[in-house]
Amino acid sequence: MVHTRGSSRRGTDRDRAGGMVQWGFTNANAPERGYALIRAGIVGGTGYTGVELLRLLAMHGDVEVALITSRAEAGMRVDELFPSLRGHCDLAFEAPDDARLAACDLVFFATPNAVAMHSARDLLAKGVRVIDLSADFRLQDQAVWEAWYGTEHVAPDLIHEAVYGLPEINRSGIRGAQLVANPGCYATAIQLGFLPLIEAGVVDPSHLVADGKSGASGGGRQAKTPMLLGEAGESFKTYAASGHRHGPEIEQGLRLMNPDLPVQVTFVPHLIPMVRGIEATLYAQLTDTTTDLQALYESRFRDEPFVDVMPWGAHPETRSVRGENTCRMALHQQPGQSTIIVSSVIDNLVKGAAGQAIQNMNLMFGFEEGAGLQAPALLP
Amino acid sequence: MVHTRGSSRRGTDRDRAGGMVQWGFTNANAPERGYALIRAGIVGGTGYTGVELLRLLAMHGDVEVALITSRAEAGMRVDELFPSLRGHCDLAFEAPDDARLAACDLVFFATPNAVAMHSARDLLAKGVRVIDLSADFRLQDQAVWEAWYGTEHVAPDLIHEAVYGLPEINRSGIRGAQLVANPGCYATAIQLGFLPLIEAGVVDPSHLVADGKSGASGGGRQAKTPMLLGEAGESFKTYAASGHRHGPEIEQGLRLMNPDLPVQVTFVPHLIPMVRGIEATLYAQLTDTTTDLQALYESRFRDEPFVDVMPWGAHPETRSVRGENTCRMALHQQPGQSTIIVSSVIDNLVKGAAGQAIQNMNLMFGFEEGAGLQAPALLP
Amino acid sequence: MVHTRGSSRRGTDRDRAGGMVQWGFTNANAPERGYALIRAGIVGGTGYTGVELLRLLAMHGDVEVALITSRAEAGMRVDELFPSLRGHCDLAFEAPDDARLAACDLVFFATPNAVAMHSARDLLAKGVRVIDLSADFRLQDQAVWEAWYGTEHVAPDLIHEAVYGLPEINRSGIRGAQLVANPGCYATAIQLGFLPLIEAGVVDPSHLVADGKSGASGGGRQAKTPMLLGEAGESFKTYAASGHRHGPEIEQGLRLMNPDLPVQVTFVPHLIPMVRGIEATLYAQLTDTTTDLQALYESRFRDEPFVDVMPWGAHPETRSVRGENTCRMALHQQPGQSTIIVSSVIDNLVKGAAGQAIQNMNLMFGFEEGAGLQAPALLP
Amino acid sequence: MVHTRGSSRRGTDRDRAGGMVQWGFTNANAPERGYALIRAGIVGGTGYTGVELLRLLAMHGDVEVALITSRAEAGMRVDELFPSLRGHCDLAFEAPDDARLAACDLVFFATPNAVAMHSARDLLAKGVRVIDLSADFRLQDQAVWEAWYGTEHVAPDLIHEAVYGLPEINRSGIRGAQLVANPGCYATAIQLGFLPLIEAGVVDPSHLVADGKSGASGGGRQAKTPMLLGEAGESFKTYAASGHRHGPEIEQGLRLMNPDLPVQVTFVPHLIPMVRGIEATLYAQLTDTTTDLQALYESRFRDEPFVDVMPWGAHPETRSVRGENTCRMALHQQPGQSTIIVSSVIDNLVKGAAGQAIQNMNLMFGFEEGAGLQAPALLP
Repeated sequence: MVHTRGSSRRGTDRDRAGGMVQWGFTNANAPERGYALIRAGIVGGTGYTGVELLRLLAMHGDVEVALITSRAEAGMRVDELFPSLRGHCDLAFEAPDDARLAACDLVFFATPNAVAMHSARDLLAKGVRVIDLSADFRLQDQAVWEAWYGTEHVAPDLIHEAVYGLPEINRSGIRGAQLVANPGCYATAIQLGFLPLIEAGVVDPSHLVADGKSGASGGGRQAKTPMLLGEAGESFKTYAASGHRHGPEIEQGLRLMNPDLPVQVTFVPHLIPMVRGIEATLYAQLTDTTTDLQALYESRFRDEPFVDVMPWGAHPETRSVRGENTCRMALHQQPGQSTIIVSSVIDNLVKGAAGQAIQNMNLMFGFEEGAGLQAPALLP
Repeated sequence: MVHTRGSSRRGTDRDRAGGMVQWGFTNANAPERGYALIRAGIVGGTGYTGVELLRLLAMHGDVEVALITSRAEAGMRVDELFPSLRGHCDLAFEAPDDARLAACDLVFFATPNAVAMHSARDLLAKGVRVIDLSADFRLQDQAVWEAWYGTEHVAPDLIHEAVYGLPEINRSGIRGAQLVANPGCYATAIQLGFLPLIEAGVVDPSHLVADGKSGASGGGRQAKTPMLLGEAGESFKTYAASGHRHGPEIEQGLRLMNPDLPVQVTFVPHLIPMVRGIEATLYAQLTDTTTDLQALYESRFRDEPFVDVMPWGAHPETRSVRGENTCRMALHQQPGQSTIIVSSVIDNLVKGAAGQAIQNMNLMFGFEEGAGLQAPALLP
Repeated sequence: MVHTRGSSRRGTDRDRAGGMVQWGFTNANAPERGYALIRAGIVGGTGYTGVELLRLLAMHGDVEVALITSRAEAGMRVDELFPSLRGHCDLAFEAPDDARLAACDLVFFATPNAVAMHSARDLLAKGVRVIDLSADFRLQDQAVWEAWYGTEHVAPDLIHEAVYGLPEINRSGIRGAQLVANPGCYATAIQLGFLPLIEAGVVDPSHLVADGKSGASGGGRQAKTPMLLGEAGESFKTYAASGHRHGPEIEQGLRLMNPDLPVQVTFVPHLIPMVRGIEATLYAQLTDTTTDLQALYESRFRDEPFVDVMPWGAHPETRSVRGENTCRMALHQQPGQSTIIVSSVIDNLVKGAAGQAIQNMNLMFGFEEGAGLQAPALLP
Repeated sequence: MVHTRGSSRRGTDRDRAGGMVQWGFTNANAPERGYALIRAGIVGGTGYTGVELLRLLAMHGDVEVALITSRAEAGMRVDELFPSLRGHCDLAFEAPDDARLAACDLVFFATPNAVAMHSARDLLAKGVRVIDLSADFRLQDQAVWEAWYGTEHVAPDLIHEAVYGLPEINRSGIRGAQLVANPGCYATAIQLGFLPLIEAGVVDPSHLVADGKSGASGGGRQAKTPMLLGEAGESFKTYAASGHRHGPEIEQGLRLMNPDLPVQVTFVPHLIPMVRGIEATLYAQLTDTTTDLQALYESRFRDEPFVDVMPWGAHPETRSVRGENTCRMALHQQPGQSTIIVSSVIDNLVKGAAGQAIQNMNLMFGFEEGAGLQAPALLP
């Protein structure tokens, strides 16, 4: 919920130094609503998905953020780390506490990989629903997960309980889920871009190419030399070109769409010298050239609130979805060629992370699917 | 108002090519509200202030955008030029039409300088209120205006009718205004930063320095070689260092705050290789060193919903206000020096343009001052 | 040649306003050299390829820039438009003059497309050699050229006289050429990246994919709204995805390498929010999986001074060639896949334009191939 | 020296994995020169000043880089860390070794602060000249140094032996120096910008303002969260506004220029979302309004090879000195004001660090002052 700025916030910065008070978003509308807000907790809130969850939840009328945890920053006000939240969030980070988390209706894990798998079981057992924004429950094949993430999975049984949180292919599953594995950012843009082609079975599934590009926020907020502005600024490059963790996730997703197709995707990610946004250019060989592909895409996504098919031949820009939960795409074909080209853009922190998590939350709790996700993108 | 995405929007891009229909934002809440939305028109909507007005008004529950004009792009859908508005705005640009504008409650001029002064009188005569986001009515001294803007002013009498739209010094005047001159972007950041010092009279007013820096969107959407990414990217420079139009506007504003002070401001603007944001670093010599300056600032802005004073010694970032209507500032002093330093940041398109215009509209029409302006900034 | 800064340059800016003197780079080394410098002219010097030619020729010991033309800026000092050349270039732009150009040994056309084809014949007839950095003589098929460039070709016979200036496939032809068609920037990066695969015939030539990305300087210095920093900054997108002029050029080049292969390339360009640099990621299906591809590439380019094959699995960065004439590349394959991936980077203004033109000049005039092109890239 | 690319470099990447060979730049010209190259060592070569020294020394005909040290990266080839040096540098980092350093004619310290002071004495004792690019010997007042750098100075006597390496005020001292303290980047741009005003004594020295802005490479190559592209990209802010280490260095430099003036400088640094470049805007109150300031500046710098005074009212761009050793500046005054405004730009890694170090080396060893520093800036 938006905490309306009031005089109480002003002039208090010095006072705060004395004794830190923690409280959630105020619930000014509750009396009018006639029903209670759900209480959400965020584990691992000092990264980009954490602050983005807070930004978006501040515009959501049905959720109270009850707590946000960080071992490293416990005690620090959230808006001291993220001054964009001054006036919007009065919380301080607190050390993880099982009892306090268990008192939530929903816990978001905005943690690094291999954290949520340690805590999810206990929360689920206490009836707390969980949305994991990390990769712990994305891959259904434990061996594949362990190979790509380099560690043993400590909750392999939960893998199969988890619902893959891509509403466009799993909406009903998400509605009833206790544990949602929020998809990876590249995986979201690429799976949605291929979706109608795969479902319709009109392309050669064995040589799919996905050339992905991401802004630097996709690399997280942790200090790493290659992600410095001095290193990644004013330059462009591939990374993980010999294999990236989202590769198996993408292939798994495409197989969900059409189990009969032996899909193989060559996925190469690139780092763009900017902060937010993913663009993926997809290439596939058409095996059926009679289909009206534009109609296929428009028809498939007609009822999807967060997929936008532009006119044939358009060029989606990442800025057109900056801050918004939309995946926007357009189709191209070049003269005399049987290759279909799809350009798909998302904001990696919104439809690629926090926004999709909130969309999933809305489905899980019966809110309107677009609640809290209505603000237009920031362009320019 | 936000036009909720529905299935009706999907798959229609081809149909649109046939017959363009124009209509405003739908008014889904009107029955519940029990009162009508105001009807707003935007003149000159193809620039950055135009698209930013549309973005912000899409989140405003009390306003219907009835029309948006552009001579050059008449007939083109707004969301074709600005795809970030797909699903949020069903309007097309139309040629300016006096009768249609006169049917509005309010008209925003998001035009280049020297356009609004030609049309404002007629609209005002018909009872339409006007907010001019250009510079036509900002300077009270006609001769100064004509010297800086290089043309004759065709409506000099309206200059004195116009209210300077900086709510923090002019709130009551704005409430009753028919014609508001929305302040310049630099002028907003710099006037607010100096405000408590000038009102309190604690600095030498004759040698004020304002070092301003702006992102490229401040230069508008018109094609100019120096504003190309290839020219302005990955570089930094001064411009208009021998005198900029906002200089006299700043001095006029400071004189309004304290008519007795002979203020003189040296203002040098710079171009930052980024899109949005203004930072101004202000320098003044203290004549009274006994005042608690932090308390002075916090007290002065305690009740201001859109000014945020950070703790002493903080470093405001432009990204902390990206997309938000806030002016955020902090104070510094260096050891052994009598110079007070103020760093003040705004989003040049929000508090520096469209957001402040909506704040002014809220005051003029009796809405809550923060209506439509509650979404947190986009960080990172 | 480098014009050494001396006292004569200082303090003269005011004097210059009076009478503009034009003179070429001084030739301080000539007495020691025992042979004359060649005289080069540049037609159309106000764009990025023009200024880049001047930057690189300033480091070349065998060439004197005799004149540089611009109809629009005639009379303006070159270093007034490009202050980076202050102290390096004492020329002013002059209107094109046939006699003065005919007195050169070599003329570079750094003009928009469809200009050089009007002037080249006369210069060639007078024994002046010509390097055209535009597209006028790149395509051997006149009809294809006219279809892509939208105008009639006025010198179709010269198309066949022109030598395509990619030294790595055409070195001996360039040595004897009077007219060189300097390759396009994308075409250079992509042709070099595919070269060993095509020559060796180890891939399926019918479904080649080239995903190209370029900095904004590739779009030139002319004012266009989509290339504004405010538009193209902090965003990423495809453009010309349904077909780009470099597509047929790339296919023509690949056919030169191996006339028997029915090559078809799907090429999609993208705009990166930065100034300089091209990265192309190439995808091809291997038909022969026994070849040691790393050895193939290293062997093919072993004697190429301006192609650098990195170790298998490396990730070339555009900044690693910023300002340098090198094309740097690396190979990748993903587990279990028959797709070979090549990432190839160049500086679009150097190996993609002015640097390659100088490399061609060096070949044409018998200079060392790397003369003037030895400075390392600017990293960071 | 430039190591000319030859076939020997190609195809060797795999071989290198076996046995790493270390050797310096080859000395192809030595026979012609008739005198030996000097041997230079670089201590701490993995940062930006280290790689920039290598880039510039590759273009210098009189210096052989004999070794480059890094404790952390010992054994790694330099061009593996910095691929821009592939083909230009065949060295590998080695652990610091006293004997090997003592065999050099000159050692550059490109280390963090508080490293060089531990090693300089031994090297000097062995006749090795030292240029310290860190801050260890910049401040003549030990107590001030210790206060700002937070540690005890272990070689206080060397402070007074060290010559402050700003050639424009210290050229003869540098010529005879054994130990040069290379100035800070901001300090260079700001001292040079104020120099003529201070020497001439025409401004009020007690209220000087220096508003400095730097690209991110000024923050070094060490991983720090605030310097991530995701944090510092597309944003602008002050830092260290309550006092920065270059403040006392600037004041000390100005006092050297005119010991009678009680100078006090308010210096506020800012972080620009770009990689290279510093701009400083300087403000001073004129006490003598009769001086022709443009003439004063042009006259003062007429014989300076690396200071360029632009015409009155020009706007220096940081890109105009990107990669070049020049400090470029211009003057402004606003109507009716007694404030003189100077905008001064440098490349923080060249005139602000490695380039100035080489300029100092040239002076110390009797080379031409501009040797190795002649390449024009990279624009765009």
